[in-house]
Amino acid sequence: MRTKIRRRQLLKGATAVGAAAGVTSLAAPAIAQGKVEWKMVTTWPKNFPGLGTGANRFAENVTAATDGRLSIKVYAAGELVPPFESFDAITRGAADLMHAAPYYWPNKNKGLQFFSAVPFGLTGNETAAWMEFGGGQQIWDKILDQFGLKGFHGGSTGVQMAGWFNKEITGPDSVKGMKMRIPGLGGEALKKLGMTIVNLPGGEIFAALQSGAIDATEWVGPYNDLAFGFYKVAKYYYWPGMHEPGTTLEITVDKKKFTALPKDVQRIFEECTRAESRLLTAEFDARNGQALETLIRTHNVVLKRLPNDFLQAYGTASGEVIQELLDTGDPLTKEVATSYLKARRELTAWNRIAEQGYMNARLLDYKFPG
Amino acid sequence: MRTKIRRRQLLKGATAVGAAAGVTSLAAPAIAQGKVEWKMVTTWPKNFPGLGTGANRFAENVTAATDGRLSIKVYAAGELVPPFESFDAITRGAADLMHAAPYYWPNKNKGLQFFSAVPFGLTGNETAAWMEFGGGQQIWDKILDQFGLKGFHGGSTGVQMAGWFNKEITGPDSVKGMKMRIPGLGGEALKKLGMTIVNLPGGEIFAALQSGAIDATEWVGPYNDLAFGFYKVAKYYYWPGMHEPGTTLEITVDKKKFTALPKDVQRIFEECTRAESRLLTAEFDARNGQALETLIRTHNVVLKRLPNDFLQAYGTASGEVIQELLDTGDPLTKEVATSYLKARRELTAWNRIAEQGYMNARLLDYKFPG
Repeated sequence: MRTKIRRRQLLKGATAVGAAAGVTSLAAPAIAQGKVEWKMVTTWPKNFPGLGTGANRFAENVTAATDGRLSIKVYAAGELVPPFESFDAITRGAADLMHAAPYYWPNKNKGLQFFSAVPFGLTGNETAAWMEFGGGQQIWDKILDQFGLKGFHGGSTGVQMAGWFNKEITGPDSVKGMKMRIPGLGGEALKKLGMTIVNLPGGEIFAALQSGAIDATEWVGPYNDLAFGFYKVAKYYYWPGMHEPGTTLEITVDKKKFTALPKDVQRIFEECTRAESRLLTAEFDARNGQALETLIRTHNVVLKRLPNDFLQAYGTASGEVIQELLDTGDPLTKEVATSYLKARRELTAWNRIAEQGYMNARLLDYKFPG
Repeated sequence: MRTKIRRRQLLKGATAVGAAAGVTSLAAPAIAQGKVEWKMVTTWPKNFPGLGTGANRFAENVTAATDGRLSIKVYAAGELVPPFESFDAITRGAADLMHAAPYYWPNKNKGLQFFSAVPFGLTGNETAAWMEFGGGQQIWDKILDQFGLKGFHGGSTGVQMAGWFNKEITGPDSVKGMKMRIPGLGGEALKKLGMTIVNLPGGEIFAALQSGAIDATEWVGPYNDLAFGFYKVAKYYYWPGMHEPGTTLEITVDKKKFTALPKDVQRIFEECTRAESRLLTAEFDARNGQALETLIRTHNVVLKRLPNDFLQAYGTASGEVIQELLDTGDPLTKEVATSYLKARRELTAWNRIAEQGYMNARLLDYKFPG
């Protein structure tokens, strides 16, 4: 699809100019005020809390901030194309941009997964730091350039929960043969520990867990999990979610169409992606905190921490998965993995004494109001 | 100062309209394209890394995204008014907005400190979550309304370092009589533990530490501290910085002038504050990680963790400081403190099993590349 300029708007401008004594140079502002409509496909169900509503909010903000010069219409998963055809929908011109997550496109380039979620990798804030000030964005640009796309950081859901389990995890051996619904690199690592990994669309998980067809599932975190009602059919809610420590979304656009926009509209668009990125993370943090209280107090959910020996085996298995990505032979995948691992070293060392060190000390025993 | 519309711009529009057969209704777009120039005062030295440069970046982004319809000129501390007169400079019309931190204005309302930094309080992300989705912004609006101001979240520097010390902290008693440069609520709490608290402007700290006039100082984190060279005159670099767990900045504007802007310019401004908030945090995370490596590897800085018994006494002293704020008798201070403490309960419980739980597990012993 080509960028669509409303004919009526153009015509109206031209008529006004014509009426105003035919000063043709006055036509320029009319064209500059030309209105562009973009179709944004998403990989989320319509109005899905946090993800779908974030996509809506972003579209509304761009439309309002550009005073309608760029208006964005949102299509939920399946409305225009099936969710996992969103990437191709842009390259073939059926859509102009997408609100999605880079780890949905390993078949385009395996390195894209680093911009979304890596087991035992960067948190959401760390991913943003790496992308904005650690060279990550530049490598992402190189990868997406090959497809005529330009990607913007779309915010992070924060650390997810390890998932809902009907069997207890007592150590690395206890998960052998356990059947879990978990996608991505985290699932690959768990496969190395002997788990049976299945993929199910969101709508089928509840029934599968209820019937015992699967023993466990991950989804997102308390906010989304509460809405799905998994607490009704699962015994334990395990943490921490090592498989997705700060799942980062993307707002990715047809690069040619983007660079054809007026410079100020480009800048507004870019600022709106960063603003949405901040809002999305704030919303997930706030809603997860509120939903967790409800799950524990109202639904008596049993929280369990994954045992250390299991976590260590899981960490080593995840390391093997990352090593395989380093060894794929694709130079861009290697470049992104190498840059990511450098950021991981620096940011893990910093956060040990910063956020992590602070939050651990905050849980010590002392008197505090509230 | 009144919002300034460039006379030449207006005149040019009027002339063009006049030439175009006197269609007076065409004047409207010319006025809508009127250019406004705002003076932004800041509490930071000129181009101060992270804070001053963040203010510059925000001003540049607003100017570019509005295509100059709203251009913002930045004044460093002291250029237009002394830094701590920034708040009053807006209310008396000498400036239009400021890039500052809410904890600089306890003399306006003690409750403002909650929007910046509270010892043993919320991290940067948690503060954003509380302000955007936990009711914080609404109370801030109520407080600032009394002064004709409107505040926007300006991003967080992240957890700061506890500071540079020339004496060792071995327990709560070891700090009695120790002389430290530390402002704010954290300093008040340390005073309760018997420390002597002094206030010194940034430029005088190095010499005071070198001469032994003070035993310790806090500043920001590795990025800013490296630039100041404190490692040359201090023995130990202590963590974690319980006094400022996610210092949050503000971009605060004359409310009347803000609401007089065209709606789309208002929206651009707001999106740019959120975008800057995301960028500032990402920049501090990335630069702190890089600077910490330099401090340790190149300058052999000795990192020390504050001992648990000291942290517990410090936590209880901080709790007393917060209780005193709850008891000031000012209803708005009480409202903000109560809302803050509710968010603290929810978000501490969530992060225990999310970011904090994740980061602790990430430090376990396992094999991982990089």
